[in-house]
Amino acid sequence: MASIFTKIVQGEIPSYKIAEDDNFFAFLDINPNAPGHTLVIPKREENKLFDLSEDEYSGLMAFSYRVAKAIEKSVDCERVGMSVIGLEVPHVHVHLIPINKMDDMRFISKAKLTTDEFFTIAGEISRNFQ
Amino acid sequence: MASIFTKIVQGEIPSYKIAEDDNFFAFLDINPNAPGHTLVIPKREENKLFDLSEDEYSGLMAFSYRVAKAIEKSVDCERVGMSVIGLEVPHVHVHLIPINKMDDMRFISKAKLTTDEFFTIAGEISRNFQ
Repeated sequence: MASIFTKIVQGEIPSYKIAEDDNFFAFLDINPNAPGHTLVIPKREENKLFDLSEDEYSGLMAFSYRVAKAIEKSVDCERVGMSVIGLEVPHVHVHLIPINKMDDMRFISKAKLTTDEFFTIAGEISRNFQ
Repeated sequence: MASIFTKIVQGEIPSYKIAEDDNFFAFLDINPNAPGHTLVIPKREENKLFDLSEDEYSGLMAFSYRVAKAIEKSVDCERVGMSVIGLEVPHVHVHLIPINKMDDMRFISKAKLTTDEFFTIAGEISRNFQ
């Protein structure tokens, strides 16, 4: 069965999309640690990061770099943190999180945003994506 | 002043070394979330991950991939998680953490290892590094 992220890529489930190319897709996490928290995924389903081939892994990381740069231009933060865990959704996803303090990386405290706020942030990051 | 990680690279501070090449260095975190928790750093000091050039970033990620594969071969775990935060030591470091549950990625609960255990794990990961 297709993962929830595959359904997002295919447009069956809506998302606040940031960017995509032939192989990768970036969109806002709807349960964000902080405003601007973004997920970057390979379109091809794979459960674990280090089960990706070196090529696909390198492509995912390069795409994530470009997304992180766009987040830095769009969201006020000390820096962008990166995390890949994947114990909940078995489809590789890179968390890119605008952080100011350690707790922003702990996946415990969550930010509440309105739909308008999600759209505004996604639009800004998307415009800054190069 | 040289960062604590630069002092480790230069051998001024001892470490449980895993691997190195001209540009990157991997060693065990001495306050690990779980046994086998490894740090991968660029030898050149830079505070923030996304301030690295694309080339240096890609090199760091490629080196981390090889280290993660070695951790998977050496430590019993569900998968290896990756995290880059950097709010405490201003020298880019990639956390590679053998995880079984979400708490292993939260930097809250810590594992206690003896010196012998650190040496044994570092040796195993190092031998599996390719």
